[in-house]
Amino acid sequence: MSTQKEITIYDIAEALDLSPATISRGLKDHPTIRKDTRKRIFDKAKEMGYQQNLFASNLRRSRSNTIGVIVPRLNSYFMSAVIAGMEKVANAAGYNLIISQSTESKEKELANIKTLYNSRVDGLLVSLAYDSENIDHFDLFLNKGIPLIFFDRVFDHPQCTSIVIDNYKAGYEITSHLIRQGSKRIAHITASIKRNVYADRLRGYRDALADHGILYDEKLIFFCNLSEQAGAEATQRILEMDELPDGIFAANDTTAVSCIRTLKQAGIKIPEQITVAGFNNDPLSKVIEPNLTTMNYPGQEMGELAAATLIRKLDTKEGTSLNTIVLHHNLIVRESSQRKGADS
Amino acid sequence: MSTQKEITIYDIAEALDLSPATISRGLKDHPTIRKDTRKRIFDKAKEMGYQQNLFASNLRRSRSNTIGVIVPRLNSYFMSAVIAGMEKVANAAGYNLIISQSTESKEKELANIKTLYNSRVDGLLVSLAYDSENIDHFDLFLNKGIPLIFFDRVFDHPQCTSIVIDNYKAGYEITSHLIRQGSKRIAHITASIKRNVYADRLRGYRDALADHGILYDEKLIFFCNLSEQAGAEATQRILEMDELPDGIFAANDTTAVSCIRTLKQAGIKIPEQITVAGFNNDPLSKVIEPNLTTMNYPGQEMGELAAATLIRKLDTKEGTSLNTIVLHHNLIVRESSQRKGADS
Repeated sequence: MSTQKEITIYDIAEALDLSPATISRGLKDHPTIRKDTRKRIFDKAKEMGYQQNLFASNLRRSRSNTIGVIVPRLNSYFMSAVIAGMEKVANAAGYNLIISQSTESKEKELANIKTLYNSRVDGLLVSLAYDSENIDHFDLFLNKGIPLIFFDRVFDHPQCTSIVIDNYKAGYEITSHLIRQGSKRIAHITASIKRNVYADRLRGYRDALADHGILYDEKLIFFCNLSEQAGAEATQRILEMDELPDGIFAANDTTAVSCIRTLKQAGIKIPEQITVAGFNNDPLSKVIEPNLTTMNYPGQEMGELAAATLIRKLDTKEGTSLNTIVLHHNLIVRESSQRKGADS
Repeated sequence: MSTQKEITIYDIAEALDLSPATISRGLKDHPTIRKDTRKRIFDKAKEMGYQQNLFASNLRRSRSNTIGVIVPRLNSYFMSAVIAGMEKVANAAGYNLIISQSTESKEKELANIKTLYNSRVDGLLVSLAYDSENIDHFDLFLNKGIPLIFFDRVFDHPQCTSIVIDNYKAGYEITSHLIRQGSKRIAHITASIKRNVYADRLRGYRDALADHGILYDEKLIFFCNLSEQAGAEATQRILEMDELPDGIFAANDTTAVSCIRTLKQAGIKIPEQITVAGFNNDPLSKVIEPNLTTMNYPGQEMGELAAATLIRKLDTKEGTSLNTIVLHHNLIVRESSQRKGADS
């Protein structure tokens, strides 16, 4: 893990050939310093990656015992389970969590990064927003060697560790299951394929079709934000198709449940006419009737492992060669896809 | 709103009749300062409420544009809705949220308070843990006049504003509704009555019984943590009673849904044998069959209003005389309590 020395006012003073006192006053926007000089100081400080609160670096505790968490949204059972797992491990090790939401926006993700940096977190646990193309905006942490662990929605980077399940295999298994139940025209409702979780499940879906001699048809792929409402809308579009699909694989349970409710309202029989499968094993999946076939996704364990990996990096400086940790997943077959007489 | 001057090393120096340089070194635990002097400095600094990161107070921006949020747990639809509302208002006003969980423990709540204080949040939005007896542990904020807004689980304090619904009235209405449906022996599943939300709903339940000439029976009150599992366990205990109740009012939907599932498994007909009502209007309430009667609780609006009230206090120093803001609630009658021929 590479580390960089923290930039001080002395470094800025040297770079600009000014006195440290001038730099100090300039950074405080003191009126005794000429306006153009203040601008030069600000620009140089920014260029060199100087952070104001580091000025008092002698006063900084070496550890804040705080871990920062950035998640897309706090609105799913899966994310609650992940965070409960993180809290458990963090508390036991004497760390406190502070959590922020990117609301699926890269711009907001960057604002969170800055806030958590200024809160002096010891490390970060991150699941990426839909629209983050890369992780350049994490440089503030990466350049200083502050540990960064990705979970669920990850990004491959030599300094970072990722905690995931095998989304490709899970997507392959769930699609193959629907095919074994007799479905041949399977719609897939998913989200931004900038994110590994959705891109990998889609690849799994395509390969399962191919391996069973079924042609891929892009008209059967529906992109949305996987909310309850988006699930209902996607299902409406499905219901308006000239030829109805005979199976639906939704990339989360919220959408799959919304899908079942909309299909039932339209008088469609599940699983007889359309088999339905979701993803996450949300408690909702056991409440909807028929009960939903889904992929069990170990959120609590993912959170525990993410926090434990980060704390191990902080405590021992070990584990820095860890690239990816893959957790087990398992298909849970329930009534929404189980046709009479078919193998699961 | 009372405010206190920030304590500096000069104040500590004066109080101990030592030089500021000695205080500064002492606080850094510098070996040139005698050990017993260091202890005196630490003790006095603590007594006076001195915070290390305030030493560099000239460097502090007057605003961090960060709002701290402390919630019991991030595991309910209600709390996600509250936080979505806060994010919306905070983002529009250029603030970032950082969120922490008390996991229903006062001790953890205090750790969060310290962490968020050290993160230099401009204000706090708080829903209290089950076991916080009072709010003395918020003194770090209160003594400095940093605004503190309570929502949902609140505490009456002259410096604070509370955002709530009328839980007494809501509890009264839901119980009266079950009575009008013919239920006379109504169990109530609830949580810690240290918290206003549960204490007030219980009072509403008792008064509704009394006003309909029904005797209160404490054997029908079940205390738990309102989780899915706790709901199933409470229902098992209800099923083992010599005389079954003919109505159940659960203080949240998670518990009510778990209750319906357990009753259905035991072959009980809902609403014919037992009417069931929940609280919160969680999406789950529309998925369970029969659909759940519940109290609509405006989480998103509560979050928006809490954030807006805090930001108004920060921006204008106005609204400091606001004590309590009460939002509307409304009963949603669905199949789980609607008996044929009865008025709702």
